[in-house]
Amino acid sequence: MSSYQFNTLQVEQTGDNVYHVQLNRPDKRNSIDDDMWKEIPQCFDSLGTDSSCRVIILSGAGKMFCSGIDLSVLAMLQDPNQEVARRAIAMRIGVKKFQDAFTSIEKCPKPVIASIHGGCIGAGSIDMTSACDIRLCSQDAFFSIKEVDMGLAADVGTLQRFPKIVGNDSLVRELVYTARNFSATEAKDIGFVSSVHADAKTLTDASIKLATNIASKSPVAITGSKINMNYSRDHSVDEGLNYIANWNMSMLQSEDLMTSVQAAMTKTPPKYKDL
Amino acid sequence: MSSYQFNTLQVEQTGDNVYHVQLNRPDKRNSIDDDMWKEIPQCFDSLGTDSSCRVIILSGAGKMFCSGIDLSVLAMLQDPNQEVARRAIAMRIGVKKFQDAFTSIEKCPKPVIASIHGGCIGAGSIDMTSACDIRLCSQDAFFSIKEVDMGLAADVGTLQRFPKIVGNDSLVRELVYTARNFSATEAKDIGFVSSVHADAKTLTDASIKLATNIASKSPVAITGSKINMNYSRDHSVDEGLNYIANWNMSMLQSEDLMTSVQAAMTKTPPKYKDL
Amino acid sequence: MSSYQFNTLQVEQTGDNVYHVQLNRPDKRNSIDDDMWKEIPQCFDSLGTDSSCRVIILSGAGKMFCSGIDLSVLAMLQDPNQEVARRAIAMRIGVKKFQDAFTSIEKCPKPVIASIHGGCIGAGSIDMTSACDIRLCSQDAFFSIKEVDMGLAADVGTLQRFPKIVGNDSLVRELVYTARNFSATEAKDIGFVSSVHADAKTLTDASIKLATNIASKSPVAITGSKINMNYSRDHSVDEGLNYIANWNMSMLQSEDLMTSVQAAMTKTPPKYKDL
Amino acid sequence: MSSYQFNTLQVEQTGDNVYHVQLNRPDKRNSIDDDMWKEIPQCFDSLGTDSSCRVIILSGAGKMFCSGIDLSVLAMLQDPNQEVARRAIAMRIGVKKFQDAFTSIEKCPKPVIASIHGGCIGAGSIDMTSACDIRLCSQDAFFSIKEVDMGLAADVGTLQRFPKIVGNDSLVRELVYTARNFSATEAKDIGFVSSVHADAKTLTDASIKLATNIASKSPVAITGSKINMNYSRDHSVDEGLNYIANWNMSMLQSEDLMTSVQAAMTKTPPKYKDL
Amino acid sequence: MSSYQFNTLQVEQTGDNVYHVQLNRPDKRNSIDDDMWKEIPQCFDSLGTDSSCRVIILSGAGKMFCSGIDLSVLAMLQDPNQEVARRAIAMRIGVKKFQDAFTSIEKCPKPVIASIHGGCIGAGSIDMTSACDIRLCSQDAFFSIKEVDMGLAADVGTLQRFPKIVGNDSLVRELVYTARNFSATEAKDIGFVSSVHADAKTLTDASIKLATNIASKSPVAITGSKINMNYSRDHSVDEGLNYIANWNMSMLQSEDLMTSVQAAMTKTPPKYKDL
Amino acid sequence: MSSYQFNTLQVEQTGDNVYHVQLNRPDKRNSIDDDMWKEIPQCFDSLGTDSSCRVIILSGAGKMFCSGIDLSVLAMLQDPNQEVARRAIAMRIGVKKFQDAFTSIEKCPKPVIASIHGGCIGAGSIDMTSACDIRLCSQDAFFSIKEVDMGLAADVGTLQRFPKIVGNDSLVRELVYTARNFSATEAKDIGFVSSVHADAKTLTDASIKLATNIASKSPVAITGSKINMNYSRDHSVDEGLNYIANWNMSMLQSEDLMTSVQAAMTKTPPKYKDL
Repeated sequence: MSSYQFNTLQVEQTGDNVYHVQLNRPDKRNSIDDDMWKEIPQCFDSLGTDSSCRVIILSGAGKMFCSGIDLSVLAMLQDPNQEVARRAIAMRIGVKKFQDAFTSIEKCPKPVIASIHGGCIGAGSIDMTSACDIRLCSQDAFFSIKEVDMGLAADVGTLQRFPKIVGNDSLVRELVYTARNFSATEAKDIGFVSSVHADAKTLTDASIKLATNIASKSPVAITGSKINMNYSRDHSVDEGLNYIANWNMSMLQSEDLMTSVQAAMTKTPPKYKDL
Repeated sequence: MSSYQFNTLQVEQTGDNVYHVQLNRPDKRNSIDDDMWKEIPQCFDSLGTDSSCRVIILSGAGKMFCSGIDLSVLAMLQDPNQEVARRAIAMRIGVKKFQDAFTSIEKCPKPVIASIHGGCIGAGSIDMTSACDIRLCSQDAFFSIKEVDMGLAADVGTLQRFPKIVGNDSLVRELVYTARNFSATEAKDIGFVSSVHADAKTLTDASIKLATNIASKSPVAITGSKINMNYSRDHSVDEGLNYIANWNMSMLQSEDLMTSVQAAMTKTPPKYKDL
Repeated sequence: MSSYQFNTLQVEQTGDNVYHVQLNRPDKRNSIDDDMWKEIPQCFDSLGTDSSCRVIILSGAGKMFCSGIDLSVLAMLQDPNQEVARRAIAMRIGVKKFQDAFTSIEKCPKPVIASIHGGCIGAGSIDMTSACDIRLCSQDAFFSIKEVDMGLAADVGTLQRFPKIVGNDSLVRELVYTARNFSATEAKDIGFVSSVHADAKTLTDASIKLATNIASKSPVAITGSKINMNYSRDHSVDEGLNYIANWNMSMLQSEDLMTSVQAAMTKTPPKYKDL
Repeated sequence: MSSYQFNTLQVEQTGDNVYHVQLNRPDKRNSIDDDMWKEIPQCFDSLGTDSSCRVIILSGAGKMFCSGIDLSVLAMLQDPNQEVARRAIAMRIGVKKFQDAFTSIEKCPKPVIASIHGGCIGAGSIDMTSACDIRLCSQDAFFSIKEVDMGLAADVGTLQRFPKIVGNDSLVRELVYTARNFSATEAKDIGFVSSVHADAKTLTDASIKLATNIASKSPVAITGSKINMNYSRDHSVDEGLNYIANWNMSMLQSEDLMTSVQAAMTKTPPKYKDL
Repeated sequence: MSSYQFNTLQVEQTGDNVYHVQLNRPDKRNSIDDDMWKEIPQCFDSLGTDSSCRVIILSGAGKMFCSGIDLSVLAMLQDPNQEVARRAIAMRIGVKKFQDAFTSIEKCPKPVIASIHGGCIGAGSIDMTSACDIRLCSQDAFFSIKEVDMGLAADVGTLQRFPKIVGNDSLVRELVYTARNFSATEAKDIGFVSSVHADAKTLTDASIKLATNIASKSPVAITGSKINMNYSRDHSVDEGLNYIANWNMSMLQSEDLMTSVQAAMTKTPPKYKDL
Repeated sequence: MSSYQFNTLQVEQTGDNVYHVQLNRPDKRNSIDDDMWKEIPQCFDSLGTDSSCRVIILSGAGKMFCSGIDLSVLAMLQDPNQEVARRAIAMRIGVKKFQDAFTSIEKCPKPVIASIHGGCIGAGSIDMTSACDIRLCSQDAFFSIKEVDMGLAADVGTLQRFPKIVGNDSLVRELVYTARNFSATEAKDIGFVSSVHADAKTLTDASIKLATNIASKSPVAITGSKINMNYSRDHSVDEGLNYIANWNMSMLQSEDLMTSVQAAMTKTPPKYKDL
């Protein structure tokens, strides 16, 4: 566990094969500073190859999930001494680094469940949680796509992922253009969260229960499902079918199929090896 | 009609230009065995070029729609005498054959209405019905994406088609990772079915009424709409517009346009030639 | 303002930086004749580069939004004196011209809000409004994808855009194949409109309020958001992230970021330059 | 061998694991009639799954390789009794059947070497041989993309495959637009054939020698190379890399790697199992 | 002919159905000024729909083909009074306008033959001629991709089209990075031009002869070939085959097929109607 | 310079802004061992962001360029203790790591010139040098795509990049399927190298001269050209044009344009700032 010591994240194992990652700057309302931008991909890259980890819960410590990017970070992007082209190239490198931080959640081969309470605002909200697999929230949660009010178009995932995971493009654009708050109920109605829970406590319980359930399944099946759903989102149906046909050339030779059959026949819970 | 004699499917014509295909292994809860994998594409390929057929209803005989892949089939995929690479190539051929079976429903140029009652589970559920155009169900229907519990990632269409036809990616992934049952109501809420009907009888009536309505339309317009919606799902808007511009180079020269105008002017139902 | 004089459209400025475009053939139920096909792209191309315009509302004058394509236009497409290939090429040019008319709404770098009351039918309905950013409607609105009843597959945007902006492909296909009317409530349920308003008056008020809100934001942020959401709809997440990283190379150097920060710090409304 | 009895093709095994397919209508200059269109995919589909076959040579019997599509076939496409739209749909089915015939050569998982002498004209020339992996010809070979002189754009592969396998788009278009003959030397210069041989006899010898060489290699390595080159031609470099990473998940576990290492160490020719 | 009056281009008809477009600022070595940027798309758009035109020759008046973009144009792009973001948006509009000018050559449905003598430098060289179908040059022609020496990456087509039409990416990049001159012989070796001619006079004769030959073919076949080759360059083989199958649904019903057959049988030159 | 200390690579600066990277295991014929796989991306990632570096030469120390992957590496991929699925996942991670090593050359924003003498074989040959921008070789160079002889399909770039940079797909496949050696002359004929030089000494001189020339150009123009050519190789022409239009929104505001103009006017060599 010593490898999961971070300044801005708290990581703990909660039950078999489930890890809980908390944004841990509660006094700063979990705003994302330069350290957190660096530690998020370190954390998810490590958990992604940690065979003891099968599912990850992501939440915020304190009163809210996340208040967005820390203004100190934006300031760093500006260097008035450079001419336009060289400054542009430096900014592109910076933006891509931030994008890669959230993409590490998507590329992590284990499911990530965002467990959202309180505010979920700006870069730390739709951008980050849209890169997660599943989103649950409490009734008090509220959301805002804040970037337009900062004078910029959201560039770390919201415009790219959010419209693809919900079913109401009209409302998506309304929320992007106005930067207004929207509630847990509205988030549920457009399909952004799977379920809304009474309060932070019941949300946590539901998140752990769901994570524990998924962690008990074959990790070969789970990681294959995530990788193939990510691929299929960005490809045609034919491409997606071709991809999984290649994937399953090896995976259907896994012992996990026999383990599953035997568990079903003996009506005992299956026990799968770690990846 | 003699061409529609199958071991595992029952095919009958129900009214003008409407065919009803039933999965017909009720004592096996319509599980998909090797015969059914072969007969499904034969059936839909034939109906696709049968000019007397304009719309197809797909349902299950007996107590449920389909209980999934028959375990006898999975066993066939394994051949312990082959080394890994040669076994992998054999499995890829097998998986692609199964994929092609369901894709024959999607490629069939006539609309296919899935009429679902009772259980709709595993390979015979989301995979098969996601390849249909329209899904109706009765209140007693329940669904499950069962593959994870068999130790594998779903490889015959669910991960490829299901997320593209509903509007809640968070719940989609929850259902895939947990393999839990979900109800008719939940299916309606996420946009998987168009409508829920009181029981199997009213479901059948509604399916036939809808099919008969569609069958009365211009088959040139209907087949063009299906082919272009399938294409557009997998392409950009610009590509989709370009595609239909080419398609309609010939189709706008059809006599069906004039037939439609005259029917509208004389307020009599139009009568279109078969394709 | 003299540049916005059209035969079939009425354009007026309603408040700072908001323009209101009305389909203005109320006695013809705003059916789209040859003039309107030409004037729509002229209007949106001009507004797109008019620095005084930041948001556009699109509505219909009189009793309904739009009754679809004027039959006089369809007749023009036919020229019985040409042989099939040459007629086909002429038709392709015609169809592409119509497609480009609606695509001009999508390509316009300012958000377009469709404000729909009464009937919204055929080519003038789902095709046109699907190319808008946001759709609001009144309770009395009803919709119909009429093309199948005219003997043709919809070729000016419905089949290409409509399924991508809502979250229920089953119902989309049912509506396409049957050409039946659907209500404001059904449109809300599947995510086609953001909100339903009591009547035409409250709808107009809500549209203006929303437009005015968006018009007060940074135009650099708004136009960047629209251009990037349009791009991302048609590309993978990775491509979308790469695109906005290039876009923001210059945009993050805008003075609008500093203007936004200063407004936030001084708690005064920001004032952004026109584009 | 009894399964390779065709009317229009002669198939024989020439040495270990090498099959020779000859277009066998020499009195008709190997023009492609309806039978040949049907037998080509039957032949290549069968050889594709025949474990005794690892490489295929394709040549023409008699004085030339192939004189193109038989005019009897084109006549069949026309049915003056159908209205334009229904005739168009029938033609599309016909064209796709022809396309699939040649695509069966490309999809065949074994390398196909076209061995071309004499005329290679029209549909039976560039279209068919462009779907092969390797092209060798004799000095007397000449080529012509004849379709423009028949009043149509080539629709069975030339326009799609030919420009992608050579390196001079200017000359490609000149050859397509003029339908002029081009020589073996010109074919070599633009990269359409690998090598030119003195006469038909030396061409045959060279073809067999090359085929025999390839047939001695690991069939796991050869089929993987063909499938991945076909895929990469149509995808970005990143997609191609991702594809082969999945492919080699199982293939790198093949015993053929160890067989190869042992052969290298013992300096004896490796002996690989059939696929 | 009165419609082809331009300040910077001279257009004349040279024989049946062949038009000759000349860059006509010989005293400025045919550098592309603002007028020429506007007139090029006007010219090619008009010729594209002029039924008397089937093939276009593009050459330069005076001592050379073209010396590149006129520096007066570049100056216009700069407006020091705008802040970075607003200047960037203005520049993007300007660059796209220039790109569209050359793309009008590619989109013109008639083949365009670039006939190049003397210098062919910068924006007026590889960018413009890469958008043509066929390139012929005289022995004295020389080429240079000049943009790097102006401090910018070529943005009107060279980097996008040039590498796709030749077969030596290593040399392409060498030429781009060094901006060095390359000769007619080198251009022929890498496949950029089809043929090299002794001098300007023989070049013109060869261009007219080639154009006249193409103009005598079925315009249905020629335009279909160009449109499909353009499409196929940018798509997979499968997409390209699907595209032409739709295209030929109408085109195979053309009378040009019968005209071609009858001409072949009667051994008389076919006579095709204009498009 | 202390940051460029590697076990397997020697890096030195040769003139202004030019770095020379040498594969430096001459006693092992520069075979790629585990260390070199790790150091290649470290080296190119560092040079990519080192502002003193504008161009990179890549060559091999000793008697040849590179003899391919070191067999010790292949052995590491195998772990007989794991079951098939888990071993497959471990191999995929390994292969992707190797792919990323060579892709770091392609992603490096500075041009990389491969300077090849002697043998260039297997993984260290076509795979690595195909990821470079420009390839020069000496007359004694020879090449071999060795993977098939090792029982596997090449999975670190050859099948993905090699066919896209040369103009003779027939010969490409012959070389892949046979693993035979090919000469400097053959490499030049198919467009794999730009030029062939008499011996290693003149090759080095030519490489340095070319690199020095490129290094004297605007780094804004050079890096933009490389990034856009890489992008365009994998996208349609329209996508490529759109990409560079966004790129040049900021780059055309660079001071390098004015620097270039002034240098041209004063006929003095321009002096550009580092990136």
